[in-house]
Amino acid sequence: MIIDVILTPAELPALTERDLGRVVCVVLDVLRATSTIVTALQNGAAAVIPVSEISEALETGRRRPDVLLGGERKGVKIRTAEGEFDFGNSPREYTPEKVRDKTIVSTTTNGTRALRACAGARLVLAASFLNLGATVNYLGEKRFEYVLIVCAGTRENVALEDVLAAGALCESLLDIGAATELSDSAQIALAAFEKAQWDLPGTISKSENARRLLAIPELSADVEFCLQRDVVALVAALKGEEIKRLDF
Amino acid sequence: MIIDVILTPAELPALTERDLGRVVCVVLDVLRATSTIVTALQNGAAAVIPVSEISEALETGRRRPDVLLGGERKGVKIRTAEGEFDFGNSPREYTPEKVRDKTIVSTTTNGTRALRACAGARLVLAASFLNLGATVNYLGEKRFEYVLIVCAGTRENVALEDVLAAGALCESLLDIGAATELSDSAQIALAAFEKAQWDLPGTISKSENARRLLAIPELSADVEFCLQRDVVALVAALKGEEIKRLDF
Repeated sequence: MIIDVILTPAELPALTERDLGRVVCVVLDVLRATSTIVTALQNGAAAVIPVSEISEALETGRRRPDVLLGGERKGVKIRTAEGEFDFGNSPREYTPEKVRDKTIVSTTTNGTRALRACAGARLVLAASFLNLGATVNYLGEKRFEYVLIVCAGTRENVALEDVLAAGALCESLLDIGAATELSDSAQIALAAFEKAQWDLPGTISKSENARRLLAIPELSADVEFCLQRDVVALVAALKGEEIKRLDF
Repeated sequence: MIIDVILTPAELPALTERDLGRVVCVVLDVLRATSTIVTALQNGAAAVIPVSEISEALETGRRRPDVLLGGERKGVKIRTAEGEFDFGNSPREYTPEKVRDKTIVSTTTNGTRALRACAGARLVLAASFLNLGATVNYLGEKRFEYVLIVCAGTRENVALEDVLAAGALCESLLDIGAATELSDSAQIALAAFEKAQWDLPGTISKSENARRLLAIPELSADVEFCLQRDVVALVAALKGEEIKRLDF
């Protein structure tokens, strides 16, 4: 299994021009989109539909009146002329009572951009530290030929926490003997994770996204929440416009 | 001093749209463009003119008949209808006897692209492991506000050795107390270097560029050559189309 990593959002446009027919993509947006998606599915949500813009969320809500809407701008839940969204973007809001059997539209700019850039892939997974082990086990069992880990990043920039999660994925795929070749980018992510793992919370607390969240009292606990490793046993996969628990 | 790192060539187009007026750029193309440039200057070359294409090298040669031409394609020295180039791209060819007081046109696709993307910067330096300490000392003395380290990469991909050199730069700038803030990308480069430094030759030997060079008997010694640290005391700066030794 060849492991390659997209480190920055700047690389995504070129991805859409590549033949991804034999590639399995794993999208990481640790703070917080893919952590929230994985949490919602774990707590019983039927599916999560990632969209980029508030207008898309509202349009999907009109088209599918059964869905709940999630998203934030500058840390606060979205309010529009059509009312308040059901959730912010904190994974801790997506409790079993609120999400069970529901389909949730979630606004995430970089997460959605990354997922859409992988549209031509054989399979697209959404992963986070929360379900890293489950994702690794699945990839290892299936012995896919080529795994491309896509770090969603922040605006146009690389996000430290996504690259460290990519490195953790690389390490685990090596540990179980599944990875046979690492690209330069995968080696960078791996080395960065191997250095950072001894104080992952301390390291990630210096990242741009973590600093932003830690400065908002209601959201600061999200950082620690999203760094929990292997607490969710499911694999999340994109099917059409929906991300669902993968049955395998 | 804020330290930021451009990890991948995909980020270069956006760089040309940024206001770089207060930014000092440090371009790294460890295997081998900036290592070769630094070596040529150390051995007495008056200047090095980086160009992307063989046709540009030939055109510059016609415009400035005093220049020598350097470059390779697939490891071998370039031969055209107008004759053979004076040098390949191995830094070991750029000996004092051959380069003293000469201006050399050197073809390097990624190196040139990176240098040109920095055109609007306050200052553009070319650096490598060979002159890393001298470059760090200069940056530290001048206490620039914002240093952007630009990893030239390979084709459209990140190059491990460039990112590790960027990490070494970050570490040294922290060590001398010059760096006050590291972007996420700088933190990634730093962590990767801190992990890799204990076996830098071993780590870099697994990179795409190193593997390519190590497979060519005449070029394999270039890898070890380019990983020598702090053996050259000069700072190399872009002035117009030429890279020259910086007097300061």
